[in-house]
Amino acid sequence: MLIFLLTSWATLVPLVAAHTFHTSVEKFIKSNSSREYTTNWFNQTLDHFTFTTQTKFRQKYLINDTFWDRNGGPIFFYTGNEGDIEAFTENSGFMWDIAPEFGALLVFAEHRYYGESLPFGAESRSKDPLKVGYLSSSQALADYVDLISHLRQTMEGASESPVVAFGGSYGGMLAAWIRTKYPHIVQGAIAASAPIAQFTSPCDAFGRIVTSDFSAAADNSSCSVAIRASWTALDRLSLLPNSTGFSWLNTNFQLCPSSHMATAANISSLKSYLTDLWTNLAMMDYPYATSFLAPLPANPVVAVCEHLSKPYTNDTELLQLVFKAVNVYFNYTGEAKCLNLMEEDGIGADMWSYQACTEMVMPFCYDGTNDMFEAAPWDLAAYTKECEEAWGPAGVPQPELANSLYGGRNLASATNIVFSNGLLDPWSSGGVLKSSEGGVVAIIIPEGAHHLDLRGSNEADPVSVIQARKLERAYIDKWIKNSNMGKYRKPKTMRKG
Amino acid sequence: MLIFLLTSWATLVPLVAAHTFHTSVEKFIKSNSSREYTTNWFNQTLDHFTFTTQTKFRQKYLINDTFWDRNGGPIFFYTGNEGDIEAFTENSGFMWDIAPEFGALLVFAEHRYYGESLPFGAESRSKDPLKVGYLSSSQALADYVDLISHLRQTMEGASESPVVAFGGSYGGMLAAWIRTKYPHIVQGAIAASAPIAQFTSPCDAFGRIVTSDFSAAADNSSCSVAIRASWTALDRLSLLPNSTGFSWLNTNFQLCPSSHMATAANISSLKSYLTDLWTNLAMMDYPYATSFLAPLPANPVVAVCEHLSKPYTNDTELLQLVFKAVNVYFNYTGEAKCLNLMEEDGIGADMWSYQACTEMVMPFCYDGTNDMFEAAPWDLAAYTKECEEAWGPAGVPQPELANSLYGGRNLASATNIVFSNGLLDPWSSGGVLKSSEGGVVAIIIPEGAHHLDLRGSNEADPVSVIQARKLERAYIDKWIKNSNMGKYRKPKTMRKG
Repeated sequence: MLIFLLTSWATLVPLVAAHTFHTSVEKFIKSNSSREYTTNWFNQTLDHFTFTTQTKFRQKYLINDTFWDRNGGPIFFYTGNEGDIEAFTENSGFMWDIAPEFGALLVFAEHRYYGESLPFGAESRSKDPLKVGYLSSSQALADYVDLISHLRQTMEGASESPVVAFGGSYGGMLAAWIRTKYPHIVQGAIAASAPIAQFTSPCDAFGRIVTSDFSAAADNSSCSVAIRASWTALDRLSLLPNSTGFSWLNTNFQLCPSSHMATAANISSLKSYLTDLWTNLAMMDYPYATSFLAPLPANPVVAVCEHLSKPYTNDTELLQLVFKAVNVYFNYTGEAKCLNLMEEDGIGADMWSYQACTEMVMPFCYDGTNDMFEAAPWDLAAYTKECEEAWGPAGVPQPELANSLYGGRNLASATNIVFSNGLLDPWSSGGVLKSSEGGVVAIIIPEGAHHLDLRGSNEADPVSVIQARKLERAYIDKWIKNSNMGKYRKPKTMRKG
Repeated sequence: MLIFLLTSWATLVPLVAAHTFHTSVEKFIKSNSSREYTTNWFNQTLDHFTFTTQTKFRQKYLINDTFWDRNGGPIFFYTGNEGDIEAFTENSGFMWDIAPEFGALLVFAEHRYYGESLPFGAESRSKDPLKVGYLSSSQALADYVDLISHLRQTMEGASESPVVAFGGSYGGMLAAWIRTKYPHIVQGAIAASAPIAQFTSPCDAFGRIVTSDFSAAADNSSCSVAIRASWTALDRLSLLPNSTGFSWLNTNFQLCPSSHMATAANISSLKSYLTDLWTNLAMMDYPYATSFLAPLPANPVVAVCEHLSKPYTNDTELLQLVFKAVNVYFNYTGEAKCLNLMEEDGIGADMWSYQACTEMVMPFCYDGTNDMFEAAPWDLAAYTKECEEAWGPAGVPQPELANSLYGGRNLASATNIVFSNGLLDPWSSGGVLKSSEGGVVAIIIPEGAHHLDLRGSNEADPVSVIQARKLERAYIDKWIKNSNMGKYRKPKTMRKG
């Protein structure tokens, strides 16, 4: 999703192609929660790598010990990403599904600066470098390390428990990285749809995968062809005399009053909304109905493309098809009264924009020929300018930082990590798709969207994800047994030499 | 060496058993330098893990390209430790000896807060957490990573060069850690006498090894027996009426006026000086003459024990032997006019005391029975109090931090590291003495003192260190060839699949 930093038209600044991950997590409605857990708080260190401050903050984590074998059973630890931890807890059914067979303690830790784990309360999101500046992946990883040590020290039966990290998307990146940086703390990691190499991937790969999903959803690529044609159709509409094009859009797209259009800049924002929408649909192209910003049907790309593959003879006919497709996304239930282009998802988009502006600099671009999007080059200078405007001196992009810290796909000495990727998922463009000779295993799920494998088992699951989860369980079992920890700890007399 | 934070008697605060490493590096006298290099400066990032500050500082590094094969030759990178980088450059002859056969570029990087690499100039050493607080091993490692990336980007021929890290003592810890934390940046590491497990080693092991060296240096352990007897002899002297004991010491130990004794506290400081001295001699027990605080003979422990193993019949006779032994250390050349108990070595003792107070918390203790020292328990509470008094809120010991960050001897997933340890060296108590099944190799040098192998070749070298260096060269060669970098880079057509 393109990130809008402000919600009034006048100052709307879409960040160039800074996709977020978080729409892949279904909206969490507490009353619908199917999971049981206790909510806990840890007195967390603000800065793990200097001694400049002694500040602590309250970090939230959720625990379920229903299935836990207190005699050395493992800890399954979700390395929370950019949002409320409850949402990730709800969307990581795989952990819940397999906890009983492993006798695992389930822990879900909230990422600093998201949800209620705000080091400076509401001011955490201010431009002040001394407030917002402690948001970094390095600090988040060290948070998790300290929390794991705390659990091992304070929970009876956990002192020798092996830990397996789980995460999806940015959470999957963190799961992989906590294993590579702290292998003495975490014994293995399931990194689902973790684009750890997105920082250096060709910028056009992401958009091509989205396009490929839409091309495959209807004959003759008619769906992606229609989307590609829609951008110039919108341009022509905006040039009609007396703002008739804007009026047509306001009416036919059922735009809410706050989203009403009057200028070419508004058209540009509508394009961003649509670019974002098609991208999100590719990410959440699951084989069963889900509930993100709003309820979605099974295989939503196919549902959308049913409209977009229909014939049209002029711009307004095409755009009416586009609106019908949009309707699948924002109004599947038919309850929405109007289309709000600036709807907030409420799960951390603003703070992710900060992370994307500092260390998570992922280049995206479109050429409009090999992909279905409007051509847009990757422009680091413009990106930097927007970031500085939004975040001030604490928001200067450091495009080489993440690769320098984590090494991208250079995982020669990493062990005990499964990287899973669904080929429907555009984020696979930055994923690890090849196993290494050492201990890194790549699992491909051809029919999978964004970390489908991390979701709970479902009757509509394709065989490929069932196989993937089976493999993941086998690796987890192996890591735990090889860890020589917990219930697999050998007696001391046998450990000599 | 015990660390004295201030140099006047009135406020002298010896930190309980916080040994430094740096006396194992010979004093650097520029006019005696046998090495050629250029001195360079890098615009280094102050804080690598937050975005709270944009401050940069000048980091010094030395370069020699005499032997460098610019067609992909490796970079030998010394991860500087607690002192002027010139001293480590001078004392790491092994790197200079083998650079020609590898066609290596030699780089020696100065550790932040030492030498001239002071982020805040003279104020770097102030108690202000915002000044001194950026001194940490994590930041130092990230400094080296950024410097290596800078060299690869800016030096013609270096872009694909594999990097081997070298370091001795704390520098060896950094060499090992930069490999475990940044294996995508550094392809292998020679970690000489690196006590990476000192944080959790039994606190008495260190003193026992020092004692063992002295016991072995004379028949019937007479040397260590004499040292063990000296502590109570000093106590009895201090109790003599009319301060006659102090007068005797001032005269017979040839104490400089500034070191003159008058109280029991002074005796305590003399004991600290002696404890420190015996420990340093064990560390620098090399088979040829060296030059540390002052010139030292070959096998200095034997030289010292020649005096200490002589018979004595009372306290003053014993203490006269002690003074003769001390004389070997401080006045081998006979040029010193008096003994200054508070001589500064000028290479970073104060900042090491800060590191020892924060993350490098290494417990030391003596029992006076199994070792030759005065009994002294490890007292974390007292240690913490002294650290807080010395450094304020930015100097609170975090005894679990280093182990949490680096994992001690838990190196299950580390590769391409050689840990070498000399068995004469008390720091071997915290070293890695066993190879792992994976890629960690332990090399033992029975006749070696503190990182003897890292020093240049010498006619007096024992066979064990010659063998150790040969093995190290073989591993370096293997790492470089396996790195698939630089001149060993396979053509692209061969690297498929």
